[in-house]
Amino acid sequence: MAEYSENVKRVLAEQGISVGDRVLVERPDSAYEGILMPNHEFSDPEVLIIKLDNGYNIGVRLVPGSRVKKVSGKAPQEKRKIRLSFNPRLPGVSLITTGGTITSRVDYETGGVVSLMSPEELLSLVPELADIVFLREVRNPFNEMSEDMMPWNWQALANDTVKALNESEGVIITHGTDTLHYTTAALSFMIQDLPKPVVLTGAQRSSDRPSTDAAMNLLCSARIAGHSDIAHVGICMHASMNDDYCNFILGTRARKMHTSRRDAFQAINDTPLARVWPSGRIEVLKKDYRKRTKGEARADAVFEEKTGLLHAFPGSPEPLHAMVDKGYRGIVIAGTGLGHVPRPWLDPITRAIESGAIVCIAPQTLYGRLNPFVYSRGRREYEQGVLFLEDMLPETAYVKLGWLLGHEEYTEEEVKKKMLEPVAGEISKRSLPGGFV
Amino acid sequence: MAEYSENVKRVLAEQGISVGDRVLVERPDSAYEGILMPNHEFSDPEVLIIKLDNGYNIGVRLVPGSRVKKVSGKAPQEKRKIRLSFNPRLPGVSLITTGGTITSRVDYETGGVVSLMSPEELLSLVPELADIVFLREVRNPFNEMSEDMMPWNWQALANDTVKALNESEGVIITHGTDTLHYTTAALSFMIQDLPKPVVLTGAQRSSDRPSTDAAMNLLCSARIAGHSDIAHVGICMHASMNDDYCNFILGTRARKMHTSRRDAFQAINDTPLARVWPSGRIEVLKKDYRKRTKGEARADAVFEEKTGLLHAFPGSPEPLHAMVDKGYRGIVIAGTGLGHVPRPWLDPITRAIESGAIVCIAPQTLYGRLNPFVYSRGRREYEQGVLFLEDMLPETAYVKLGWLLGHEEYTEEEVKKKMLEPVAGEISKRSLPGGFV
Repeated sequence: MAEYSENVKRVLAEQGISVGDRVLVERPDSAYEGILMPNHEFSDPEVLIIKLDNGYNIGVRLVPGSRVKKVSGKAPQEKRKIRLSFNPRLPGVSLITTGGTITSRVDYETGGVVSLMSPEELLSLVPELADIVFLREVRNPFNEMSEDMMPWNWQALANDTVKALNESEGVIITHGTDTLHYTTAALSFMIQDLPKPVVLTGAQRSSDRPSTDAAMNLLCSARIAGHSDIAHVGICMHASMNDDYCNFILGTRARKMHTSRRDAFQAINDTPLARVWPSGRIEVLKKDYRKRTKGEARADAVFEEKTGLLHAFPGSPEPLHAMVDKGYRGIVIAGTGLGHVPRPWLDPITRAIESGAIVCIAPQTLYGRLNPFVYSRGRREYEQGVLFLEDMLPETAYVKLGWLLGHEEYTEEEVKKKMLEPVAGEISKRSLPGGFV
Repeated sequence: MAEYSENVKRVLAEQGISVGDRVLVERPDSAYEGILMPNHEFSDPEVLIIKLDNGYNIGVRLVPGSRVKKVSGKAPQEKRKIRLSFNPRLPGVSLITTGGTITSRVDYETGGVVSLMSPEELLSLVPELADIVFLREVRNPFNEMSEDMMPWNWQALANDTVKALNESEGVIITHGTDTLHYTTAALSFMIQDLPKPVVLTGAQRSSDRPSTDAAMNLLCSARIAGHSDIAHVGICMHASMNDDYCNFILGTRARKMHTSRRDAFQAINDTPLARVWPSGRIEVLKKDYRKRTKGEARADAVFEEKTGLLHAFPGSPEPLHAMVDKGYRGIVIAGTGLGHVPRPWLDPITRAIESGAIVCIAPQTLYGRLNPFVYSRGRREYEQGVLFLEDMLPETAYVKLGWLLGHEEYTEEEVKKKMLEPVAGEISKRSLPGGFV
């Protein structure tokens, strides 16, 4: 944080004002009321940052003649009572919260966003949910922002999801968006015999901001979980920058393609499974989806931690050597073009394979399909024993390889064979329509 | 390669036929003439693969009653005479060839594509070039498929390009597409005081295939190099799957986004500089481009090889530890979301910074802009000393960091400062219009 000027420090001290207090700034020309936020490193020392009631922050310069008053102390974090009127005639759905922006709000101590909200508070923001589904239970196995989700979180979440799924008509999981596509891919593999929808959703803007996408994403997720017959694990998030409808994208084909846009999640090499409107309209785009059945889901939540993901680049393959030295059992390389690595990367690949590791190549371009037979480099890698993963996303490939290697009962040949066969729609022999920029 | 059946082997041996020969296959129902290609591992042992005169390969099963005849031996690789009629009144342009698909053709020995074509052969495929530009010279500093281009190739190419540029009105460089965007970014930094266009182009289909994109890409490149006033390094490739026009994309904002489509190169977080038609029409899309000047270009072709690029993922940061252990001076991490890494990655980042390395974060989503101040993880990384590269592509960031670190005269603080300032349009404080999927 930058230092305030001596003048501003004195004004704040005189009024006993600190960050988080509600203040009124009166300037000769204007007045602003709101909560005093911390200033940033780049703030002007004469400027107070105020969060207005509409949720936006503004910088207010203390021009000569300005006065600052404390209106009230730190606002207690509001605890709205959950006012869902449960209607057991509606489809019974379970909600699992794991952390992330969708259950976050601005922290007045730091000015940033923190994961603090209780499931009840989240639901109180979207009371319309009670008219769509009968919320049987809310589970909260852990709270992590998604950048901290690790394979053991996926395993815990898969186990919890299976329990919840077998007692309801569908499951909604709220999750941070950074690695939402990794987790969704993991659940796509770790939940077998899936008879019902598992809908992961998140928000790009925290739930206490006027521009939040949390409410619509939750409503659309409830429509899929409770009212669709699509028995897949997928991501349900905004389809565009408008608050009109969401896409439901297969969990192994989704990727976060923008840092901040609400429509950041895109189907890669695929079309979304369905479009869904908050009003309840569901337009299925992929006709060959798996339908609801009566069976029970089964958790297959294993993962080999000695698995890694690397992107080939024009430079030294030190990171690849390191994975071999550390005894990695599986390595996914995002290769260039049709699946190539630079010449110096061939040696560590040989070392990896000789050490018993499985080495796979996925497309660094993200879009499109690999082909080892067009160029001599591809044929060389293929002859080394590298697996070419067709049109599988690198992130999905990492998750799948770690999951397969987690099965101690599989032989190396079985892992290789399964890596090249679709388990959850993650690989196709023929390119699917749609799915390029 | 798979084994042919004993029957097929006998037929081929009787006729003295080997791969590369021109053959006629007469079946009871049909006949096929073309060049015998090698079969693949997955070929049927009863099937011959024949390259037809239209360039496509088909598999011909030797059903009972089929006969195979040798029409002629291996076709000599055709050497068409270059028939450019040089018109010195046209703008003088230099061509630099470096290898890649655009100067490749099918190798009848292996069935794959190899880089073999001479510059003269390339030009003989596009005789219309002689009506657009006066081709002053053809340089060929090296021949590499682009997956093998390394920073020292960029340096050699930058030096050659500067020499060629100072003797002509513009330069066209043909290059493989796998890492075309890395090289174009490198030239964007390594050529300073750029007074004229430097146009990099390639092909997604080899030049002897009917569907090749080489000719149109070369014609459009010649229009930009010889007839535009755009003094930038950029990529000129198909704008769509139609053979209608090309995009000219700023070298630091382009990325190969598809393994095989002709419109694989996309402008990320940016609009293309211009659209260009083979007929000569040029539609400038970015109005604030740098114009041609009279000055001389200057090579600044340095690179620090102890630079690396890594993608954060939910797993162990072993590759990052390895870079620190090996004394890397610069590390670019493609972080998730607004620029985050998993909690276990914080320690090796601290180790890297304490060892004197510069650690930067670029967006793993590719599209969008980083922000360290929204979430606590971002603030933590920022406080560690990580540089947040706004909207810079990870690949461009790697190239820029290595280039800056190659300047021994820069202090660490200077490198950090320059990393966050635009040198060749690679970073912007405000998001540019366009450029999402």
